[in-house]
Amino acid sequence: MAKEEKRDVDVAISIGVHPAVLLAAASSPPFGVSEYGVANKLLGGDLRLIKCEKVDAYAPAEAEMVLEGRISFEEEVEEGPFVDITGTYDVKRMQPVVEIVNVMHREDHIYQALLPGGPEHRLLMGIPREASVYEAVSKVVPRVRAVSFSNGGCGWLHAAVSIDKQTDGDAKNALLAAFAGHPSLKHAVVVDSDIDVFNLDEVEWAIALRFQAGEDLFVIPEVRGSTLDPSADQEKGLTSKMGIDATRPLGIPMENFEKAEIPESERASRISDKISRRLKEKSY
Amino acid sequence: MAKEEKRDVDVAISIGVHPAVLLAAASSPPFGVSEYGVANKLLGGDLRLIKCEKVDAYAPAEAEMVLEGRISFEEEVEEGPFVDITGTYDVKRMQPVVEIVNVMHREDHIYQALLPGGPEHRLLMGIPREASVYEAVSKVVPRVRAVSFSNGGCGWLHAAVSIDKQTDGDAKNALLAAFAGHPSLKHAVVVDSDIDVFNLDEVEWAIALRFQAGEDLFVIPEVRGSTLDPSADQEKGLTSKMGIDATRPLGIPMENFEKAEIPESERASRISDKISRRLKEKSY
Amino acid sequence: MAKEEKRDVDVAISIGVHPAVLLAAASSPPFGVSEYGVANKLLGGDLRLIKCEKVDAYAPAEAEMVLEGRISFEEEVEEGPFVDITGTYDVKRMQPVVEIVNVMHREDHIYQALLPGGPEHRLLMGIPREASVYEAVSKVVPRVRAVSFSNGGCGWLHAAVSIDKQTDGDAKNALLAAFAGHPSLKHAVVVDSDIDVFNLDEVEWAIALRFQAGEDLFVIPEVRGSTLDPSADQEKGLTSKMGIDATRPLGIPMENFEKAEIPESERASRISDKISRRLKEKSY
Amino acid sequence: MAKEEKRDVDVAISIGVHPAVLLAAASSPPFGVSEYGVANKLLGGDLRLIKCEKVDAYAPAEAEMVLEGRISFEEEVEEGPFVDITGTYDVKRMQPVVEIVNVMHREDHIYQALLPGGPEHRLLMGIPREASVYEAVSKVVPRVRAVSFSNGGCGWLHAAVSIDKQTDGDAKNALLAAFAGHPSLKHAVVVDSDIDVFNLDEVEWAIALRFQAGEDLFVIPEVRGSTLDPSADQEKGLTSKMGIDATRPLGIPMENFEKAEIPESERASRISDKISRRLKEKSY
Amino acid sequence: MAKEEKRDVDVAISIGVHPAVLLAAASSPPFGVSEYGVANKLLGGDLRLIKCEKVDAYAPAEAEMVLEGRISFEEEVEEGPFVDITGTYDVKRMQPVVEIVNVMHREDHIYQALLPGGPEHRLLMGIPREASVYEAVSKVVPRVRAVSFSNGGCGWLHAAVSIDKQTDGDAKNALLAAFAGHPSLKHAVVVDSDIDVFNLDEVEWAIALRFQAGEDLFVIPEVRGSTLDPSADQEKGLTSKMGIDATRPLGIPMENFEKAEIPESERASRISDKISRRLKEKSY
Amino acid sequence: MAKEEKRDVDVAISIGVHPAVLLAAASSPPFGVSEYGVANKLLGGDLRLIKCEKVDAYAPAEAEMVLEGRISFEEEVEEGPFVDITGTYDVKRMQPVVEIVNVMHREDHIYQALLPGGPEHRLLMGIPREASVYEAVSKVVPRVRAVSFSNGGCGWLHAAVSIDKQTDGDAKNALLAAFAGHPSLKHAVVVDSDIDVFNLDEVEWAIALRFQAGEDLFVIPEVRGSTLDPSADQEKGLTSKMGIDATRPLGIPMENFEKAEIPESERASRISDKISRRLKEKSY
Repeated sequence: MAKEEKRDVDVAISIGVHPAVLLAAASSPPFGVSEYGVANKLLGGDLRLIKCEKVDAYAPAEAEMVLEGRISFEEEVEEGPFVDITGTYDVKRMQPVVEIVNVMHREDHIYQALLPGGPEHRLLMGIPREASVYEAVSKVVPRVRAVSFSNGGCGWLHAAVSIDKQTDGDAKNALLAAFAGHPSLKHAVVVDSDIDVFNLDEVEWAIALRFQAGEDLFVIPEVRGSTLDPSADQEKGLTSKMGIDATRPLGIPMENFEKAEIPESERASRISDKISRRLKEKSY
Repeated sequence: MAKEEKRDVDVAISIGVHPAVLLAAASSPPFGVSEYGVANKLLGGDLRLIKCEKVDAYAPAEAEMVLEGRISFEEEVEEGPFVDITGTYDVKRMQPVVEIVNVMHREDHIYQALLPGGPEHRLLMGIPREASVYEAVSKVVPRVRAVSFSNGGCGWLHAAVSIDKQTDGDAKNALLAAFAGHPSLKHAVVVDSDIDVFNLDEVEWAIALRFQAGEDLFVIPEVRGSTLDPSADQEKGLTSKMGIDATRPLGIPMENFEKAEIPESERASRISDKISRRLKEKSY
Repeated sequence: MAKEEKRDVDVAISIGVHPAVLLAAASSPPFGVSEYGVANKLLGGDLRLIKCEKVDAYAPAEAEMVLEGRISFEEEVEEGPFVDITGTYDVKRMQPVVEIVNVMHREDHIYQALLPGGPEHRLLMGIPREASVYEAVSKVVPRVRAVSFSNGGCGWLHAAVSIDKQTDGDAKNALLAAFAGHPSLKHAVVVDSDIDVFNLDEVEWAIALRFQAGEDLFVIPEVRGSTLDPSADQEKGLTSKMGIDATRPLGIPMENFEKAEIPESERASRISDKISRRLKEKSY
Repeated sequence: MAKEEKRDVDVAISIGVHPAVLLAAASSPPFGVSEYGVANKLLGGDLRLIKCEKVDAYAPAEAEMVLEGRISFEEEVEEGPFVDITGTYDVKRMQPVVEIVNVMHREDHIYQALLPGGPEHRLLMGIPREASVYEAVSKVVPRVRAVSFSNGGCGWLHAAVSIDKQTDGDAKNALLAAFAGHPSLKHAVVVDSDIDVFNLDEVEWAIALRFQAGEDLFVIPEVRGSTLDPSADQEKGLTSKMGIDATRPLGIPMENFEKAEIPESERASRISDKISRRLKEKSY
Repeated sequence: MAKEEKRDVDVAISIGVHPAVLLAAASSPPFGVSEYGVANKLLGGDLRLIKCEKVDAYAPAEAEMVLEGRISFEEEVEEGPFVDITGTYDVKRMQPVVEIVNVMHREDHIYQALLPGGPEHRLLMGIPREASVYEAVSKVVPRVRAVSFSNGGCGWLHAAVSIDKQTDGDAKNALLAAFAGHPSLKHAVVVDSDIDVFNLDEVEWAIALRFQAGEDLFVIPEVRGSTLDPSADQEKGLTSKMGIDATRPLGIPMENFEKAEIPESERASRISDKISRRLKEKSY
Repeated sequence: MAKEEKRDVDVAISIGVHPAVLLAAASSPPFGVSEYGVANKLLGGDLRLIKCEKVDAYAPAEAEMVLEGRISFEEEVEEGPFVDITGTYDVKRMQPVVEIVNVMHREDHIYQALLPGGPEHRLLMGIPREASVYEAVSKVVPRVRAVSFSNGGCGWLHAAVSIDKQTDGDAKNALLAAFAGHPSLKHAVVVDSDIDVFNLDEVEWAIALRFQAGEDLFVIPEVRGSTLDPSADQEKGLTSKMGIDATRPLGIPMENFEKAEIPESERASRISDKISRRLKEKSY
């Protein structure tokens, strides 16, 4: 809009902020909703902003450092290549120049940075999508336990969802809803609620023991996916999506799928507690 | 809840009400939201209720007739077989008895009834689902034009959705979202926005000329569907869902798909107007 | 053949003829069979022809108007774009010139024309194909009730066939035969004989309630189809065909699929007759 | 019909007849067409029949032996197990008793018999089906060269068809027509016209070098097939059909598929003729 | 064999042995090859055995404890339920009784045990299968880098294989060979050699960014699998196998798939070394 | 290696050798294993070699003729087009020149040659692959009876394998192993051990009566195949592989699949022996 009106835009670039602010910045709210509003909500109403000294913009009061600048409506330079959440190089792009006109910072400030393509980057991008998928799946199955956007899936392309299912078909409905809840999602797996979706080993174990590829898998080819995926047809924006139902089939007796537990006597319990304590003391 | 507390429930059965009240009654709002609230919203705040004479319940003031009754918490009788939106016979069920204790009605009242399994029944059930699917699809594609739950699909099982697409994959994302928006949906078709989804002939024409089954179709077998569908595995609650992308492929020139228009001269226009007028006069 | 012999061909173009003549003209009989012969058969032997005045050709005696002409073996001009049964624009083509040398017509003749791409055009093209498909399917299943080439399928691409089936596999055999009976057919649906194939709503209802896409559908990709279909690979002449078996599975009790009927008392019957009569009187 | 009228049926069982009579007997003409008529047509009008001596029935005049009998309308005995064209044992069935009342035979007559399930049996059953498939495929592709019902396919379940194709999709249309032409057909393969369909090695060679299973194969599961196939679901009458397009793809240069020929000099030709002659002389 | 000869079998049960002995015990060599031979090979010829005191059997000289016993050829008792590598309960089985007749042990011996269904159990079972799969895949592709049987796959059901591929089809050939190399294998994934198959995150990352389910996946349903898999049809011994090709397609530029690296200046390098050192000192 | 060292290579081209030598030459042993070693093994240690007169090379002592030559490391000429096992023309290639410097031959020697693309060529190429596939399949199923590389499959692309199966899934495991045992294999069929895999008719009969394409077939598209297959994508080296399980399903009674046998009385036996003897006498 500023470009159309041929005017520069004042901007505050804040470094070293509360994680809730980072998360809000990654949450892509609909047009018209301020990310500061989201952050304030996450902080229980405790977000404080300050006005910049030289430009007409606000910054979180707790920031370690604030760069006050102006985004040019006409001057552009080539930027990048940057690294995206996938950990691969993005293309170089023409981007508007930001002129820094003032810098505010705390005494002994820390320049906090986030390595692109690393787990921190993926976590911030993934958490808001976990919320979207949780909400979408909740509309079609009785109960959703948890949603995880894993690190290996770049916090963007893979979701694992645990549910309590009523019928064998619920898991596939949950998969359809997961894809509707985050259109860039490429692969999704649904597991029972005794599986911890934040533990890759457990999710893989469910796929090993509760999944039959001939019945519990569906593939949707040539559907719109993420532009970040290099294996997709990036010109046409097409990818394949895959859904995996790794929940127990209800027709097979429940105990065949039960995870064995090692019974622990009181004495064994005391010994293992003692060992744990010693290991902790040593490590500090 | 009343059953657990072993108390009867007072009830007003209203006959001959405003269509907005019927629609609200069919809208399945989440637990805790009153259907009267929905009807009032649809009527722009103009819903008026009256208190019953003999029971503790309210009815729309405009109703032609109100049956005041009490739903027994313990006495049940076999009811049915009734006809559902599918037009087939439902099973007989044990249902609580309602004792009618009073009847209010207007002078020269009309007993308005709705034939079960007919278009009126399907329309009332379908309209709230059109809204759900519209909302779900809107989240994944740039623009949804219209959603239709057709009569042949019983206002419950079939959706036709028209969209403006940006990439060829958008239509399949729209299909996934449609299934997530109404978990009982069985078949869905997505068309371009030049197609009128309320006109079966146009939707069929799009399937004939803009759809390639080898690429533009997906089937999800053994997924939870509607219990009303007699072809489904009703014991396990499983059905097959099918999505059809009948939008123009972007890679083929647009003009190959254009609907021809018959040019009309000014004189032809005058003549056809005259004919239309005469036909109208005759029919009164 | 005339082109090879370098001679012009006399021709009579008849306007305003009996529908049987139009139908015969659309019936594509094998080489060597005259369309006039087909029309004469349809008319029970009552077709009368007259000889033209200026050219060596015959025309139906009942025509409103006859254009007598000669098709040039050498002169060609660009013709079109015309509109085909699909309702889309065909490509322009070089076609031989017809020189009109005489016009015969009745007094107060009517210039009867057929709008290309409209229902009348599709009906004339579709009826002969309904006969071909009827014959082909009759060879593989005990009894065919009816075949419909719908308007939405342009009278060319879609067939609905109703049969009495003996085994669950009969419907798929009927589909294979339908595709063999009209090689341009793209989509076909087979329904039970209680479904009226000329009523789109009923056919759609059968697909909603008697069809499971995971079992009752087949797709044949990369097969020769109609050159009129813009979604096909028109260079290689390849399309996808799809067959839908929307007949009741014999393994599920018949009554689950029965269409409910509204019982009518004698009195109700008398009232509804009276209402019908009044409505009719009003409309004249 | 005789059973309903409670009357025995006279019958002539002819042994040692012209192959045309055997073929006619295997041709399953529609009800009302006599197999003798078919045989007479095959023999160019030269079939001569004689009246039996003791029963009201006719037999071919050239038969080596004629058993004159009466089929009882009421007495039945268990028959079999016989061997069918598949070479496997059929179930035992209750069949009416035939009482032999007279035997006519030539002097020094030969008792000619046909081993069930052997090549002769399969040939007689297969030849009429080759004609049906030839006719059906001829309606959908420009030119059919030959049709073979192989011995391995029991003269009933497998067809190989050679065609001249115009587009890559013609072969699949030919397959659809083959299945429509003989509803018991289970597997069909279409090859180019340079392949001899009566030579299994050549057909297999075409499948090895001109077929890509990922594109050129289709399978129709759960369709009505032959009751003779023990792998089918014989209770429901369902089988899977498979079509194989082993024609050259038109998009790959023709010469890549050409069969190499060994050039022969005049001298080599003379030598090989000489060798052939000697081998022949030796073998007598 | 002893059972047939009706004689008991002497046995030494060794507890607390070298890992090479455990591994050899898990390696299922063909009949006739001694597991001690395998262990000796792994130990470079250094395996020392001692003869038992009371029974005719040998045990590793380094064992912490040796139970000398006799396996009864006739007495059996119910054993279990034990926990298998899957971590689920196995069925109870009748097994021969072992009578312990002598125990040898070191002074201050350690009773070393292996928790069934835990990572140690899976590791011992998996390593010999990694070798089998390595060998099988080596026969069909130019170079195999590594094979991993993951913990989530219970050391038995899941293999990840990294290869250097020459053509895009190599990965699928590698998958076929992996399934042939270990018939109980259920799911296999093939990745490029820049992916560490022992790191689940990296394997998942490759599936996210280098895999298209529409082309790079195959499923073989109804094939013989492991009897340990509760989701399989355990009565018929049938399961579904799934192969995933997560290698880079050669047709897309290599750099699109490159993992970004963070450049490190000399100074940064010195600082990060210093931090690492401090962290280490602290943790002891 | 010689090329890199810029030196010519001495070579003996032997014509008219023992079939074991031809077979060894076709067996593609791993690098480092001499084909003469393989031939010697096949001949039970009886292979005798002689040193050439003019070049440093050895030839089989029994050869009819030996061409002594030198392969140039630098001079190349265009060779071909030759005919490969497929019977089609190979492309012309640049190949090093061989200079013949001496010829040794027997008195009255025979110039034995092998027609390329004929059965002899295919047999020699196929037999070593039958051994590879036999070995690979033996690792995954209890018992392999025989493996045949048919003539129609060019001794390279098609394998038929007969096995004794324990579970219904064994046949598919055998197919996977067959593809792993010969990476160029395109199509494979597995049959029961009562089928003679060297008899095409029997294999086809098993496919007709013991195979259901909907369950017993798998296709792996876009996998590396043989460069000799003209239907493959020869640029990318990709083909489709197809596996066919034509073994009896264990769930259907065995007798439904039994091949009928014609019982022979002692007298019939004597007669048929006599006929056989006479036919033999005649043919000499």
